[in-house]
Amino acid sequence: MLRNDQLDQWDHDHFFHPSTHLAQFARGELKNRIVTGGEGVHITDREGNRLLDAFAGLYCVNIGYGRQEVADAIAAQAKELAYYHSYVGHGTEASVTLAKMVIDRAPENMSRVYFGLSGSDANETNVKLVWYYNNILGRPEKKKIISRWRGYHGSGLMTGSLTGLELFHKKFDLPLSQVVHTEAPYYFRRPDLSMSEEAFVAHCASELEALIEREGADTIAAFIGEPVLGTGGIVPPPQGYWAAIQNVLRKHDILLIADEVVTGFGRLGTMMGSTHYGIEPDIITIAKGLTSAYAPLSGSILSDKVWKVLEQGTDEYGAIGHGWTYSAHPIGAAAGVANLKLIDSLNLVANAGETGAYFNAAMRDAVGGHAHVGDVRGEGMLCAVELVEDRDDRVFFDPTKKIGPSLAAALLKRGVIARAMPQGDIIGFAPPLCLTREEANTVVSAMADSVKEVLG
Amino acid sequence: MLRNDQLDQWDHDHFFHPSTHLAQFARGELKNRIVTGGEGVHITDREGNRLLDAFAGLYCVNIGYGRQEVADAIAAQAKELAYYHSYVGHGTEASVTLAKMVIDRAPENMSRVYFGLSGSDANETNVKLVWYYNNILGRPEKKKIISRWRGYHGSGLMTGSLTGLELFHKKFDLPLSQVVHTEAPYYFRRPDLSMSEEAFVAHCASELEALIEREGADTIAAFIGEPVLGTGGIVPPPQGYWAAIQNVLRKHDILLIADEVVTGFGRLGTMMGSTHYGIEPDIITIAKGLTSAYAPLSGSILSDKVWKVLEQGTDEYGAIGHGWTYSAHPIGAAAGVANLKLIDSLNLVANAGETGAYFNAAMRDAVGGHAHVGDVRGEGMLCAVELVEDRDDRVFFDPTKKIGPSLAAALLKRGVIARAMPQGDIIGFAPPLCLTREEANTVVSAMADSVKEVLG
Repeated sequence: MLRNDQLDQWDHDHFFHPSTHLAQFARGELKNRIVTGGEGVHITDREGNRLLDAFAGLYCVNIGYGRQEVADAIAAQAKELAYYHSYVGHGTEASVTLAKMVIDRAPENMSRVYFGLSGSDANETNVKLVWYYNNILGRPEKKKIISRWRGYHGSGLMTGSLTGLELFHKKFDLPLSQVVHTEAPYYFRRPDLSMSEEAFVAHCASELEALIEREGADTIAAFIGEPVLGTGGIVPPPQGYWAAIQNVLRKHDILLIADEVVTGFGRLGTMMGSTHYGIEPDIITIAKGLTSAYAPLSGSILSDKVWKVLEQGTDEYGAIGHGWTYSAHPIGAAAGVANLKLIDSLNLVANAGETGAYFNAAMRDAVGGHAHVGDVRGEGMLCAVELVEDRDDRVFFDPTKKIGPSLAAALLKRGVIARAMPQGDIIGFAPPLCLTREEANTVVSAMADSVKEVLG
Repeated sequence: MLRNDQLDQWDHDHFFHPSTHLAQFARGELKNRIVTGGEGVHITDREGNRLLDAFAGLYCVNIGYGRQEVADAIAAQAKELAYYHSYVGHGTEASVTLAKMVIDRAPENMSRVYFGLSGSDANETNVKLVWYYNNILGRPEKKKIISRWRGYHGSGLMTGSLTGLELFHKKFDLPLSQVVHTEAPYYFRRPDLSMSEEAFVAHCASELEALIEREGADTIAAFIGEPVLGTGGIVPPPQGYWAAIQNVLRKHDILLIADEVVTGFGRLGTMMGSTHYGIEPDIITIAKGLTSAYAPLSGSILSDKVWKVLEQGTDEYGAIGHGWTYSAHPIGAAAGVANLKLIDSLNLVANAGETGAYFNAAMRDAVGGHAHVGDVRGEGMLCAVELVEDRDDRVFFDPTKKIGPSLAAALLKRGVIARAMPQGDIIGFAPPLCLTREEANTVVSAMADSVKEVLG
């Protein structure tokens, strides 16, 4: 083991951390944290801290930390064959088995899986395939992608464009011109406080309809959305939202991409968010829960309708010009197989539904009545608390007050990791799906104390 | 173990293989290959075949297959902590150590490493950072990227645009408008056969100069190139090329991105291709050799000059809006540390230089005189044989004759994996860096026999 001061020096001098204030980190104003282990919902660091991770890494460690079944599967694959590519019909027993397991867990009429590495690269694949699809169908103008404000779909150039959050656009010249955004399905932030949920859904659908009309339906290829808004604020959709949106999309022959990077594999208390809300997507993006982050792996699940056109394309133009060297990496595939088996054998999907409902209700009971809590919302193992200056008139805090980050810091002081979401004063919770009621109580009680400390 | 027929069914029904003729695969016309193990330069499959992989996967398994030191490091990390994120100053001992090890192996004045997953996503990061850099410097118009025809930089939307190969553009609406291409440094395919190497280098530099003039230097942010062209045909640069190109770039204040995904970590017989050719890049892309593909990991190495501007950006605008959930994944980092140690302890960089030179010379001796061999070229553990209809007048074969693929098939029949490069009739070799002279002889002799079989 290295001396801490040595490691700290290397870290500050050479390591470019994502989503970090680079100058503060380089100057040592922002402390690092070297994580050394984890078990269940807890992680430990080099300083000996043991923290309850109520965000499951970045809502990805669905099975919890330290699962030796998955570690053993990774070790066995590494020993046997750490790598071979999957181009031109190559594969491993794990990668083929995982393709079958994913299709078994996906909505009906899903046919094929392309494996990538991250949610970002899977959405990149999706846009490429959608463009190819419309070229093969002889509709070269039908290419724009509609995303929602506050959607999160990655942080590449195209995928960061799909993302509808200022942090990911500012100073990066995004969004690219091929992406247009529509209303976020965020009832708490509805434009007019007097609007009913039903009226707000009609408003979202008509905004979408108007956007399609403005741009021209023959220029719009696809609509992408998360079943529950994630990084944009952890916002379950208003009642009837997905049915209304799908009506509009069908009318204009626009493909639907369900980004299930957060919701896939149990988080909502159902295997997939699409079935949870009756969404019938043409393409589904998966990552995080697919391996519970034990190894990098993502996927694009394609409907038979889309796949058939890709087949036609290769008959017309030859092998498809798309692939990552590490597509369907054996280590990721082995982790995925072991992880999905564990989700089943530990009954984690049901626990996400049941303990998630308990957690959400307890959170609402504990802080929902506070004068500065505007909204407590969630679904399954997702929960958000939104803080406001004035709850009756829904007046938001001045962002420079940094209420969200202060609350996250107060929670951390109490040994609980939650996330100050990047746009708004919103504290997000997305614990591992194995959370117990007792652990839920710990988080809720830390939140109640933190709200009191920061907001009185 | 699953029955073969069961696995085959799942594979053909559900697995979307990259770079594959999807229709032929779905119809079963293209056979799959389930790879089960590997050792040194050999892989084995479920049918019991043992093949000499003279392409090291996709030129990535630098240390060779079956290295238990790296498998053990992966197993230990998986057991201890399979995942935590690296956002906002978080990390693991392995990820910080690897950052230090990478900087120690990079050219001077390199300062920071951002870790991603694939070469594609690293180049995506690079373009984002270059755009951010020029926004912070108050040059919002300086954004276009110059790449070379036949360059390979990934297969995403932006990275596939950087790639200068037809297969990756056709029917995908690429390249995007932010990318412009210049002459490939491909002396064998020079526009005029009578041109000397020196004159061809002057031609490449003046083509670049003319492109910059046409577009306007104040619209060009960066130039990206591989030290040796890879997927575009495995082409070492003509003598003096990089010096001439760098002169032009410096004159117009254009950043240089060296894409060392293939050349990094030993392949040319030097640790990095940049030092091999005296390239002084502002950003270096790394992947493949960083972990020898034992786990997915890539990186963007930034010069201090670029880094300082990024620091300034976060002082002005706050935390940088860029990150992948799996940036600096612990499993990848642990694999990277063990892999770089092994490259050193096995002296693989020197072997790549020495045995690589032997391999290239033997290949030239064996097939260089054949009437249909136009060019045998290489550097270190990279070698290419280019086939032509008529060598005196440099007449290429009609692509529909598929000479390259036929030769690769003839090699495979002899137990040797090589790659028919996608544009031109070019057989590429990029074996693991541990190749022995005896193994080199096996490859050369199989190639000589295959050329004879296919071309007489």
